Amino acid sequence: MAIEPLAETEKRVQPRWLSDDEQQAWGAYIRLAKMLMRQLDRDLHPFGLSTNDYEILVELSEAPDNRLRMTELADLTAQSRSRLSHQITRMEVRGLVRRVACDGDKRGTFTVITPRGLATIERVAPSHVESVRRHFIDHIPPADLAVLTAAYIPVMERLRKVRDRD
Amino acid sequence: MAIEPLAETEKRVQPRWLSDDEQQAWGAYIRLAKMLMRQLDRDLHPFGLSTNDYEILVELSEAPDNRLRMTELADLTAQSRSRLSHQITRMEVRGLVRRVACDGDKRGTFTVITPRGLATIERVAPSHVESVRRHFIDHIPPADLAVLTAAYIPVMERLRKVRDRD
Repeated sequence: MAIEPLAETEKRVQPRWLSDDEQQAWGAYIRLAKMLMRQLDRDLHPFGLSTNDYEILVELSEAPDNRLRMTELADLTAQSRSRLSHQITRMEVRGLVRRVACDGDKRGTFTVITPRGLATIERVAPSHVESVRRHFIDHIPPADLAVLTAAYIPVMERLRKVRDRD
Repeated sequence: MAIEPLAETEKRVQPRWLSDDEQQAWGAYIRLAKMLMRQLDRDLHPFGLSTNDYEILVELSEAPDNRLRMTELADLTAQSRSRLSHQITRMEVRGLVRRVACDGDKRGTFTVITPRGLATIERVAPSHVESVRRHFIDHIPPADLAVLTAAYIPVMERLRKVRDRD
């Protein structure tokens, strides 16, 4: 008679609930992240930008020839390609970026930052960096920042692979 | 002749740019947060929930009498009241929560989780906790989690006050 081993069933069914410490860490992480994003969006609002717009302008302004393939930009900004494409269209309408075909290259198009986009980032950057300092960086001791960087980078690399696989 | 002191002008104009270490920490923090939220949303998608829906159901299910004032819920979930109100309306339409008037209390309404909302959270929780573990908690050493919790809680308290003041 085939009886499913109880231990196996239990293992599958029992969720690995978070311990109190883990729950507290997760709550602090995700809640702070949401609050920060909303605050940064509010601080960028007077400039007519969102944090997503800002992030894309920075990546493009720092890229060689001020341009990136859509796949590279999706990777750098941790967005899905379809979501990014909508975002780029909205930014194109406002004259901040422009799509150009890759010469002799079938792998799609580049996104280029326009002179207007460059001027925008230059104007907004001092205020944005001040807001990142005021709401986050200035309140975390440098030693803790180093722990954070070392802990998060491998988690991020892993997540990027999960996304690419799916 | 009134000449503005140069030092003062310089101080106002010079942005306090991030150091390389700070830049790396900030990039790791905010990029991971975005990737995690998108991944958790994708993992919740088959259940018809977003991470925001999930968070609200958890807070309500853990509250006394399964209900919270809108102001309390806005505080706990770090959302603005207007954004939260739209979210609650969408969840009400789907039968997950319900608004009720506070007896003899002019301070507005309560949001209550419905039996359907409770059943939903019970069904989804094991999968969600697994996804939090797989994408974040299981990859961070407990000592680092403790450092991060201690670092984030005061930053969060500060941000909450900034938001209330504005």
